[in-house]
Amino acid sequence: MKIICQKDILQKGVNIVSKAVPSKTTMPILECILLDASEGQIKLTANDMELGIETKINGEIEDPGKVALDAKIFSEIVRRLPDNDVTIETDNNFNTLITCEKAKFNIPGKEGSDFAYLPEIEKDHYISLSQFTLKEIIRQTIFSIADNENNRMMSGELIEINGSELRIVSLDGHRISIRKVELKDDYGQMKVVVPGKTLGEVAKILSGDAESEVLMFFTKNHVLFEFDDTTVVSRLIEGEYFKINQMLSGDYETKVQINKRELASCIDRATLLVKESDKKPIIMNVLDELMELKLVSSIGSLNEEILITKSGKDIMIGFNPKFLMDALRVIDDEEVTLYMVNPKAPCFIKDKKESYIYLILPVNFIA
Amino acid sequence: MKIICQKDILQKGVNIVSKAVPSKTTMPILECILLDASEGQIKLTANDMELGIETKINGEIEDPGKVALDAKIFSEIVRRLPDNDVTIETDNNFNTLITCEKAKFNIPGKEGSDFAYLPEIEKDHYISLSQFTLKEIIRQTIFSIADNENNRMMSGELIEINGSELRIVSLDGHRISIRKVELKDDYGQMKVVVPGKTLGEVAKILSGDAESEVLMFFTKNHVLFEFDDTTVVSRLIEGEYFKINQMLSGDYETKVQINKRELASCIDRATLLVKESDKKPIIMNVLDELMELKLVSSIGSLNEEILITKSGKDIMIGFNPKFLMDALRVIDDEEVTLYMVNPKAPCFIKDKKESYIYLILPVNFIA
Repeated sequence: MKIICQKDILQKGVNIVSKAVPSKTTMPILECILLDASEGQIKLTANDMELGIETKINGEIEDPGKVALDAKIFSEIVRRLPDNDVTIETDNNFNTLITCEKAKFNIPGKEGSDFAYLPEIEKDHYISLSQFTLKEIIRQTIFSIADNENNRMMSGELIEINGSELRIVSLDGHRISIRKVELKDDYGQMKVVVPGKTLGEVAKILSGDAESEVLMFFTKNHVLFEFDDTTVVSRLIEGEYFKINQMLSGDYETKVQINKRELASCIDRATLLVKESDKKPIIMNVLDELMELKLVSSIGSLNEEILITKSGKDIMIGFNPKFLMDALRVIDDEEVTLYMVNPKAPCFIKDKKESYIYLILPVNFIA
Repeated sequence: MKIICQKDILQKGVNIVSKAVPSKTTMPILECILLDASEGQIKLTANDMELGIETKINGEIEDPGKVALDAKIFSEIVRRLPDNDVTIETDNNFNTLITCEKAKFNIPGKEGSDFAYLPEIEKDHYISLSQFTLKEIIRQTIFSIADNENNRMMSGELIEINGSELRIVSLDGHRISIRKVELKDDYGQMKVVVPGKTLGEVAKILSGDAESEVLMFFTKNHVLFEFDDTTVVSRLIEGEYFKINQMLSGDYETKVQINKRELASCIDRATLLVKESDKKPIIMNVLDELMELKLVSSIGSLNEEILITKSGKDIMIGFNPKFLMDALRVIDDEEVTLYMVNPKAPCFIKDKKESYIYLILPVNFIA
């Protein structure tokens, strides 16, 4: 194989596919990036068997062929090359010479045929949305997946299509995050659970451009994302997602409108008094026109007051400050509305259209 | 005690003195910042018994007094307060109320009288130089102190005054870094060894302003830095520094002029092939008008060529690439000159005026 391409193009491609290189694996071939120039175009591929990414890059093929190169070494090399044309050439033993200006790297490669290619995916069911929207709704929900492996379903996010409405849901047993967006077309009914890791990596690769589209194809076991010159294929999490609709009742006893920045700053201050080992709640005392906030820990105490607009009953309720903070951080509105029933029942933060719903369970506290 | 001061001024002061708070100590009082408003001005102090920092801040004293507050908690609190006036008030038990707008923090404090004040320093011997110069010469030499505690002398830097010339020296057994600067006055003869940690922290606090001065006072056991509203006192390292002058012979067999950026980029590339565990040298083959560079490791190999201007003999010599890189990084010249004798003797990188001298020992290699 012998190919020539520009350093910046090569680097961009390597960065994209590197997201699918496993940090730990018992199969050394998975730690590689496959360079495939055997079929008239240059493709880079990485695949950890759950998540696979392929991207095409522009370049010249002088001698068709393919080679698998250690992803970490190869990307380090590419990153430090001068900003010029890079020539990559392999011999019959897959020893690979990478030349750029007067720098010549020599590293061992592996036979490409050992490589695990991306699975073939049927392209029957799909949706289309903008890169911006997909990147945003992932960011706005991914923080509340559970990262432990005890409950595989909680480590994924539900993506549900209902006509032209897309709903994305994550939950970890203490809270639920939901975002809804309107799609341009009616795509019927679909429901899949995508691994959080896949969504996180896809969000990193997406340009976030509002004008560029992503196509998402769904099969029984896989989801495929197609955008720019890149294809991402991931396994789905099998099984039935949690029934969340019954938890989303619209009843409330107390409704509070509060300035988001003020609330977030207060929680941020309170958090510094919380040590990992003793999780102290932030206690909200909701009165007419005023919310008193309080956190007491072994380090010290914080008391603060914020002006609010309230309707309904007074309530005193405690929360894990981190859960409130996570939700507030991804809400763009200047003012947020909290709906509460009692100190044992979940609190909802949502807008009128319910384009976002953040449900947070309160915690017990001693007043 | 009751004081009022602006958040940004308080934060700046806290950041400065925090540099002298030890990360580990058996004396809890040393983990504190002392707020002293007992003598008509507000002073913040921290002291780890080797390095002490004191800074004055503007503010209003409503009730004179002092209190010692946990440095970590206090600085976290100050950082997250709104940008407004901060009131700090202690009761008889040193419980401290920190108020800013509607936020009220309550943390325990300690009696100030337990605190280790800075030692009194005689101000007989001193030099004056610009903050910019001091910050620069520290940065340009501090990387080659030894960070192990086996040789205390190597963990410091020699500061030597000879009339109006200041020389700063660091060495770690493999290399020596020297910077010389001309002072505005003749200050006679002085020679002290200042702990590297002290210099590192001082460099962080210095504004780096070329118009602002630093005064350095020397006694037998201490050095004191005075600049802006801040005083830094540090113990000196006692004993005789290494005799380096005899190592700085001017003889050479090969002189090479080379573009600094090209050499640094090549070494940077070579370094990615070096694992912590197997330290491989970069081998320079100096020919007429050309330097061949080569590094071979278990990961792969790099070969590169750089055009040079050479006088004297050809030479093949190997170096720890990190040591070359460290020196090149702090040299501002576009072109550097290397002086070499043979593959076993130190290489010098220096300018004509010898405002900088970087001596690096070569390493053995198999060609």
